[in-house]
Amino acid sequence: MTKGQGLKNRGHSREDVEERRRAAEEHCSVSLAAISSYSIDPEAARSHIENMIGCAQVPLGYVGPLTVQGEFATGGFLIPMATTEGALLASVNRGCSLANAGSGVTVRVIGDSMTRAPVFRVDGVAHGMEVIDWVGDNINAVREAAESTTSRGRLLGVEAFPNGRNLFLRFSYHTADAMGMNMCTIATEAAARVIEEGTGAKLISVSGNMCTDKKPAAINMISGRGKTVIADCRIPAAAVEERMHASVDAVVETCYRKNLVGSAMAGSLGQNAHVANMLAALYIATGQDPAQVVEGSMTSTLCENVGGDLYISVRIPSLEVGSVGGGTKLPTQAEALDMIGCRGEGKALKLAEVFAAAVLAGELSTLGAQAAGHLAKAHSQLGR
Amino acid sequence: MTKGQGLKNRGHSREDVEERRRAAEEHCSVSLAAISSYSIDPEAARSHIENMIGCAQVPLGYVGPLTVQGEFATGGFLIPMATTEGALLASVNRGCSLANAGSGVTVRVIGDSMTRAPVFRVDGVAHGMEVIDWVGDNINAVREAAESTTSRGRLLGVEAFPNGRNLFLRFSYHTADAMGMNMCTIATEAAARVIEEGTGAKLISVSGNMCTDKKPAAINMISGRGKTVIADCRIPAAAVEERMHASVDAVVETCYRKNLVGSAMAGSLGQNAHVANMLAALYIATGQDPAQVVEGSMTSTLCENVGGDLYISVRIPSLEVGSVGGGTKLPTQAEALDMIGCRGEGKALKLAEVFAAAVLAGELSTLGAQAAGHLAKAHSQLGR
Amino acid sequence: MTKGQGLKNRGHSREDVEERRRAAEEHCSVSLAAISSYSIDPEAARSHIENMIGCAQVPLGYVGPLTVQGEFATGGFLIPMATTEGALLASVNRGCSLANAGSGVTVRVIGDSMTRAPVFRVDGVAHGMEVIDWVGDNINAVREAAESTTSRGRLLGVEAFPNGRNLFLRFSYHTADAMGMNMCTIATEAAARVIEEGTGAKLISVSGNMCTDKKPAAINMISGRGKTVIADCRIPAAAVEERMHASVDAVVETCYRKNLVGSAMAGSLGQNAHVANMLAALYIATGQDPAQVVEGSMTSTLCENVGGDLYISVRIPSLEVGSVGGGTKLPTQAEALDMIGCRGEGKALKLAEVFAAAVLAGELSTLGAQAAGHLAKAHSQLGR
Amino acid sequence: MTKGQGLKNRGHSREDVEERRRAAEEHCSVSLAAISSYSIDPEAARSHIENMIGCAQVPLGYVGPLTVQGEFATGGFLIPMATTEGALLASVNRGCSLANAGSGVTVRVIGDSMTRAPVFRVDGVAHGMEVIDWVGDNINAVREAAESTTSRGRLLGVEAFPNGRNLFLRFSYHTADAMGMNMCTIATEAAARVIEEGTGAKLISVSGNMCTDKKPAAINMISGRGKTVIADCRIPAAAVEERMHASVDAVVETCYRKNLVGSAMAGSLGQNAHVANMLAALYIATGQDPAQVVEGSMTSTLCENVGGDLYISVRIPSLEVGSVGGGTKLPTQAEALDMIGCRGEGKALKLAEVFAAAVLAGELSTLGAQAAGHLAKAHSQLGR
Repeated sequence: MTKGQGLKNRGHSREDVEERRRAAEEHCSVSLAAISSYSIDPEAARSHIENMIGCAQVPLGYVGPLTVQGEFATGGFLIPMATTEGALLASVNRGCSLANAGSGVTVRVIGDSMTRAPVFRVDGVAHGMEVIDWVGDNINAVREAAESTTSRGRLLGVEAFPNGRNLFLRFSYHTADAMGMNMCTIATEAAARVIEEGTGAKLISVSGNMCTDKKPAAINMISGRGKTVIADCRIPAAAVEERMHASVDAVVETCYRKNLVGSAMAGSLGQNAHVANMLAALYIATGQDPAQVVEGSMTSTLCENVGGDLYISVRIPSLEVGSVGGGTKLPTQAEALDMIGCRGEGKALKLAEVFAAAVLAGELSTLGAQAAGHLAKAHSQLGR
Repeated sequence: MTKGQGLKNRGHSREDVEERRRAAEEHCSVSLAAISSYSIDPEAARSHIENMIGCAQVPLGYVGPLTVQGEFATGGFLIPMATTEGALLASVNRGCSLANAGSGVTVRVIGDSMTRAPVFRVDGVAHGMEVIDWVGDNINAVREAAESTTSRGRLLGVEAFPNGRNLFLRFSYHTADAMGMNMCTIATEAAARVIEEGTGAKLISVSGNMCTDKKPAAINMISGRGKTVIADCRIPAAAVEERMHASVDAVVETCYRKNLVGSAMAGSLGQNAHVANMLAALYIATGQDPAQVVEGSMTSTLCENVGGDLYISVRIPSLEVGSVGGGTKLPTQAEALDMIGCRGEGKALKLAEVFAAAVLAGELSTLGAQAAGHLAKAHSQLGR
Repeated sequence: MTKGQGLKNRGHSREDVEERRRAAEEHCSVSLAAISSYSIDPEAARSHIENMIGCAQVPLGYVGPLTVQGEFATGGFLIPMATTEGALLASVNRGCSLANAGSGVTVRVIGDSMTRAPVFRVDGVAHGMEVIDWVGDNINAVREAAESTTSRGRLLGVEAFPNGRNLFLRFSYHTADAMGMNMCTIATEAAARVIEEGTGAKLISVSGNMCTDKKPAAINMISGRGKTVIADCRIPAAAVEERMHASVDAVVETCYRKNLVGSAMAGSLGQNAHVANMLAALYIATGQDPAQVVEGSMTSTLCENVGGDLYISVRIPSLEVGSVGGGTKLPTQAEALDMIGCRGEGKALKLAEVFAAAVLAGELSTLGAQAAGHLAKAHSQLGR
Repeated sequence: MTKGQGLKNRGHSREDVEERRRAAEEHCSVSLAAISSYSIDPEAARSHIENMIGCAQVPLGYVGPLTVQGEFATGGFLIPMATTEGALLASVNRGCSLANAGSGVTVRVIGDSMTRAPVFRVDGVAHGMEVIDWVGDNINAVREAAESTTSRGRLLGVEAFPNGRNLFLRFSYHTADAMGMNMCTIATEAAARVIEEGTGAKLISVSGNMCTDKKPAAINMISGRGKTVIADCRIPAAAVEERMHASVDAVVETCYRKNLVGSAMAGSLGQNAHVANMLAALYIATGQDPAQVVEGSMTSTLCENVGGDLYISVRIPSLEVGSVGGGTKLPTQAEALDMIGCRGEGKALKLAEVFAAAVLAGELSTLGAQAAGHLAKAHSQLGR
């Protein structure tokens, strides 16, 4: 425990937190009673935050059970979501019910790698090519340096993008069950030092933004980052009409004019209704990094009339999630992962499948609501 | 209160929540002790979530005090952030310290409107032009219909984007101190019904994705949505070198190769280091909609060497925040807003300014860390 | 005429051209017989090229007659196109025939302005806002300076985009029948000098790339530049099946999976089959600037099944063409414009309508060919 | 030769062309004297155009000699360009002179493949994955089918992008010295038929727009298509100041605010001054496909102050050119290729290097002109 000193206190004990909280109350002339009425042990949060004064309490509920037919997740899942936006869970829940009325949600993870792309300064075009050649020739040494920093991470490859005096090397890793961003950063920095020594290239930043982390970038939409997941579901017309009060063709037309035409005209990366809503609520509930909702928001949601039924699919190019590490260890977050059987080793792909299924359910419901013309009404009645 | 029925219980009392939680525990064969150890009154959350079983507890701390020089926010602010990602607050806090060593952060809100863009089906090009003309001729009736649904919202304008049998009308509103998405949806739906009746155009979806909400879209990056905010700060070279262990030129070069060149090559909308991190933590702490971090992530962060000092600026095109409505009413979220004096009427622009300043501080710190070559080390030591 | 001096000769007479050509032949050890077998008077080209040694001869043909139903162009047009790509004219011609079998092509010009966006260096955020205010307060002086440089151009407005120490001012002009890029550049530079004097902002470049000229940019796709044109056509199912050997639904499905889904997944600005082909051939034939095909390539082409018929539409956001100025004065180019009655004053909007109709015809044909599965065959047989 | 029948004449002899031209003159009530005053043999154009009535004459000049230091092109090149835009060649020529004052232009081709991406309809996510597996298991049969159609083309790989009921397979080929688009289309269609038979997937379009041909798409900017070429040059400060009347820092600042910041804010793919101008003029002169200027326009042009000198570089991601095939066989186009020694077998990479060098020279000159503040003046004086 650190000696108390109010706002300057850097300790992690409950006493430290309390002292800091009181100092903050005084500094801001406010009461922080709710923020300080948390139940978790602040020591458990020591590697998750600094200057802690309490907790935000975000209402947590569930949707489902939702029938998922993945390679890692199969069965009916009760899926936790944390949000302050009324109507969201009700909407996703309706989507679950509809998906269950059909085939359930089929899911496949088609990509699984985490990337980090440092930028080096080189002398110019000719030197850049020499550095690229050097990396190719010394890939074993580069890999060894990278993997020496991690017990789980495995370097999958390095892709080079030279541009004048800039050389971007995009490192791809398998990160086991962790989301793996930190693992990759540390490994890449080690590899970069080897490259610097061998080539005279100068590391400017361990992240050169071609990774791309937490910014919407076409490179991730196209090539994927984290888990790339696709899912679909087929729902009988009768269920669509009865529960959504919309025809299959109306949902298909809504998806076409909104997700395809509208997104294209807006210059959007991705084309969906509100994937970020589901991801934010899932990520907050389960201790994922909510800033990575950005990449997930580049999802493509498509609908078709297939033999009279409603076919709906999602392609989530960049679902950066883990079943270990990050916020997954915290008490409420760990319990939320337990609800779907996705905590700990060997569960990351199952987690990705469950999340993709929930995303599909949410898309299904909102497209149906918009097709039926009652989105505004839903918001009006339920506060959202 | 609804009659208890386990997972089917739709009530909002603590008893309802408890019953649902127990049913969930049974269904999932897990304990949800931490999730159910919340302190807020679930009745207060009734318009914020459905199927509530408890709360996610997200560690909350502060950064600052940070000196802000805005038109609405001036002085030193202790700014609340909620996260599970270690090192984030420490990093932003270092940025605050550096910004204070300079001029503090100057901020200006340069845009303030919320948009909703329904898509209509028209007969074709000629009919589409007739509908556009009709809307122009009947803009008062359209406005009246829209504004009849809201006491605060004001329709600022309607922009038309015809494309074949699709007609997108992008409605812009002033939404007072609310983020205003729901207000706009309801108002736009009312206006759309008037247009349908007057023209024969058929409303397909009240949101046609040219709004664009919660998807990364160039239209928002260029034209703005919610608050568009710019901020800057100038920091003496000595402070940069002493506290960041990097030269001004190294920070400028990092920003150039990473934010400008790297982002461009990745096909990114926006060019920044990690704006989504700050926004997610600010939004969760203060009850904003975390899915709207997506739009904020299109921020532009730039650095220059100005007379030997470090000049840094951010342009946040789309900061969709409010000081009333949404999650701002919940207990911990309201207290967090109180910390910065941004709760309630008349505070939305101040809130936007404080957030922009915090974003700048976080960018400053991370660019400095990457320039100094210790990003990986920071992650390694602090868990992030 | 300049004194002869071989490669250094800067004259424009036929003798100068001949001397330069001979010097080039000698320098490169090649014969340039075909290049020097041109028929136009090189003096006529003096403001169109420097270092002229002859002419490229690009085969020129026509498509049509195509029935156009615009506001400025009505009737059947024989439309000139210049290309070296076999099968292109045959394909567009088939599209013309199909469009005629339907309603002909309905066209509307929905936007008409040319833009230039200088970038200024300002001191920072606060100064930038002062400059913007100054421009608003002194818009008459700014307009006067701009318009003093041109007899035809009219300043329509100035939009401001501040970002740190960068201030972009996007000037929009009506340029009468000229494409108008040079007119706008000259006018904007004059206006910029007034702004510099009044504000202390420093003009860095008269084009700051937010114009955006000859680069693919979302700002033009969304807001338009030059002429923004929409067109559509409805074709009976029988005609589609007989002449395209494809069903209406097959064409619609091709357009959907290719133009909408494929373009979105590729991170494309615009969604079409091959609009650039038509524009390049039209531009080269009629003396437009072929580098501006880039902006036109962001076109949206959509198909629907409407009552069993094939409905097809195009939205060309950025058709930067003129009926005066640029290459339109050259002999073969002027004749090509004459073929469609689009040379000289008062013809620019008619020209835009004819071009849009030809673009639609080309899209129609290629989508049909791809739907029928004979694109490769067409290329194989006709050399393209 | 076809029997004469005016506009319906489909023949390729000079008599056919004359008859068609006269019929066009009559139909349009115009004289086409200049268009019909061409010197090439129309029979030579029979695989390059249909409905030929003559030729467009586009003034052709040269820039250079420009010193190129590539792997395939070395020495001083006199480079042909065809344009109607005054000042373009003068500007590029000035850039050549400046580049020669420095090191000349160093060039490297870093990628060389042509792509075609058909879209198939599959039953859904599970079937899509089966098809992808089948292609992997049967890649030899797929390759054999593709390569059976071409003597030169070699299949390099197939990348899969599934999305719901859409499956895009991006085929990459080495196309020897041809640009190769048609070769790839034919080969891919043959391969697609094998996949259809083996899997039940249904080919919807041999081009599914993930290729991406003639549309601006991030996938090409990031991954390249055709030749990917990088080039740079270093120019002494004295030369910059003397010939551009601008300081090195002014050019660097112009490039930064315009190409980097401005392009980013406009939502541009690529960041350059006017690359499309050079490519259009080079492509028209040498018989390349001018519609492919679109992809080339996504070039990145960067400047730095390196030890007081001006460093400038270009990265052209997608330079789709050939030294055989397409328009390269036509008389004036063949001569233009001869000027740079780039006609026929074994010359495509050399051609790419020469073009990249010319692009750099043009960028250098325009950035310099904008930095010196005399762009508008140049246009005013020289007609552009």
